[in-house]
Amino acid sequence: MISYLSQLDAPSTLKDSMLYSISAGGKRIRPILALAVMESFQKDPLQIVDAVCAIEFVHTYSLIHDDLPSMDNDDYRRGKPTSHKVFGEAQAILAGDALLTESFTMITNNAFLSPEQKVQMIAVLSQAAGAAGMVGGQIEDLEGEDRNLTLNELESIHEKKTGKMLECSVLTGGIAAGASDDDLKYLKNYARHIGIAFQIQDDILDITGSQDEIGKPVGSDEANLKTTYPKLLGLDGAKKEMEKHIHISLEHLNKINGNTGILASIADYIIKRNH
Amino acid sequence: MISYLSQLDAPSTLKDSMLYSISAGGKRIRPILALAVMESFQKDPLQIVDAVCAIEFVHTYSLIHDDLPSMDNDDYRRGKPTSHKVFGEAQAILAGDALLTESFTMITNNAFLSPEQKVQMIAVLSQAAGAAGMVGGQIEDLEGEDRNLTLNELESIHEKKTGKMLECSVLTGGIAAGASDDDLKYLKNYARHIGIAFQIQDDILDITGSQDEIGKPVGSDEANLKTTYPKLLGLDGAKKEMEKHIHISLEHLNKINGNTGILASIADYIIKRNH
Repeated sequence: MISYLSQLDAPSTLKDSMLYSISAGGKRIRPILALAVMESFQKDPLQIVDAVCAIEFVHTYSLIHDDLPSMDNDDYRRGKPTSHKVFGEAQAILAGDALLTESFTMITNNAFLSPEQKVQMIAVLSQAAGAAGMVGGQIEDLEGEDRNLTLNELESIHEKKTGKMLECSVLTGGIAAGASDDDLKYLKNYARHIGIAFQIQDDILDITGSQDEIGKPVGSDEANLKTTYPKLLGLDGAKKEMEKHIHISLEHLNKINGNTGILASIADYIIKRNH
Repeated sequence: MISYLSQLDAPSTLKDSMLYSISAGGKRIRPILALAVMESFQKDPLQIVDAVCAIEFVHTYSLIHDDLPSMDNDDYRRGKPTSHKVFGEAQAILAGDALLTESFTMITNNAFLSPEQKVQMIAVLSQAAGAAGMVGGQIEDLEGEDRNLTLNELESIHEKKTGKMLECSVLTGGIAAGASDDDLKYLKNYARHIGIAFQIQDDILDITGSQDEIGKPVGSDEANLKTTYPKLLGLDGAKKEMEKHIHISLEHLNKINGNTGILASIADYIIKRNH
């Protein structure tokens, strides 16, 4: 990712701001999921490194835009000042725009995928990130900010805002690996449920975690009057709900015709992570 | 475009803001160019309507983001209040994000193009719109705002900010029509030079036009201390420069193995338009 950005024929301030956010780290759960799917089907994950970086570009763009003053107005992300705090609002918006756009270039550049596979991946990515997916989820999230949400509404927001991109990650791996339509369906369901579990754990960590570990102030959800799983279900109820979704995700995983041990361990990591 | 947006499974506020900007009209020069190229090669332009709408989506997203308070801070566009004036900043940013993202979905959905053609078009579009193209041009434009630019710097900004997307339009038509590599090169040069001519005419209209015709206040460039072609070359000099570029564009057009009368008439329109 960093070498791709460094080689871009683009204004240095733009490259700096793109690199700043891409280099900020994070869990890289999306690329890891896609590569783990390739591994599960005994394919070489290195063949799709650029395509999985594309997903991380899209994820990073969404964080930069979500953090903007007119959206969530966050000053810190992953323990570092957010893009607009460092580069100003205009640069932050454009760095996000550029990351989103370059993600599609990266997929077209891949040397191993067939044109059919590239078109399928681009369709999955643009739909996951678009109006019916991530952007739509961000709109619903902003619109739901000042009122109490039901469990269904909360799930719908998370499904769109983060779930679709996790589904995109496993589908990207599955498409590259030549998985059957059935296996793609199981992969998608696996991702859907670990996505919900992931979000519940995020909400739990906002209560039980430490700022050093999660990279942002603890208790910010409560301070922002946000509807969360622990708020709706209690802390114990939220933990049970998370375990339920992990259980369902593993059921789908077991139906897949491949060696999916690594995907099961990612589900396990989601429960046990502390950041 | 409007039917595609209306059918999207997305929050209604998001669809409204996307439709608002897409329906605001404009010259539609980019879609027309792509369709005119198809026509020049005796192919049915209707086969790529969705792919050319994708280009208009990307163009529209760029206008929404350029107009934002942290960028050009414009209140009017095409005679109507800008997106953030109507929907607020967060919605405007997200409407732009969604239009950019959906543009790639639209290309993947096309029923006539081969996967190879789609990948080639997506590569051309994402590169034209990305860090080395349109977004990079916007950064250079913002960075050059408070100082006098040379003619070379001015041309570099316009080449990136508007030229690349015009090149993308003719290449999209050319790829769909199965044009030869030579013809794609001539088409690209044709677009490059009508792009510069188009920008010069924009600068001239900002001095000589009327607000009713161009849809925004006249004289805004001078009020904003912007470097323009008339400022660098004088009004007559700018007109001569424009004619020079139209002349070069027609030279490239004449080398193309097709019936390019309609593309020549578009070059002619650029000189004569009053908005």
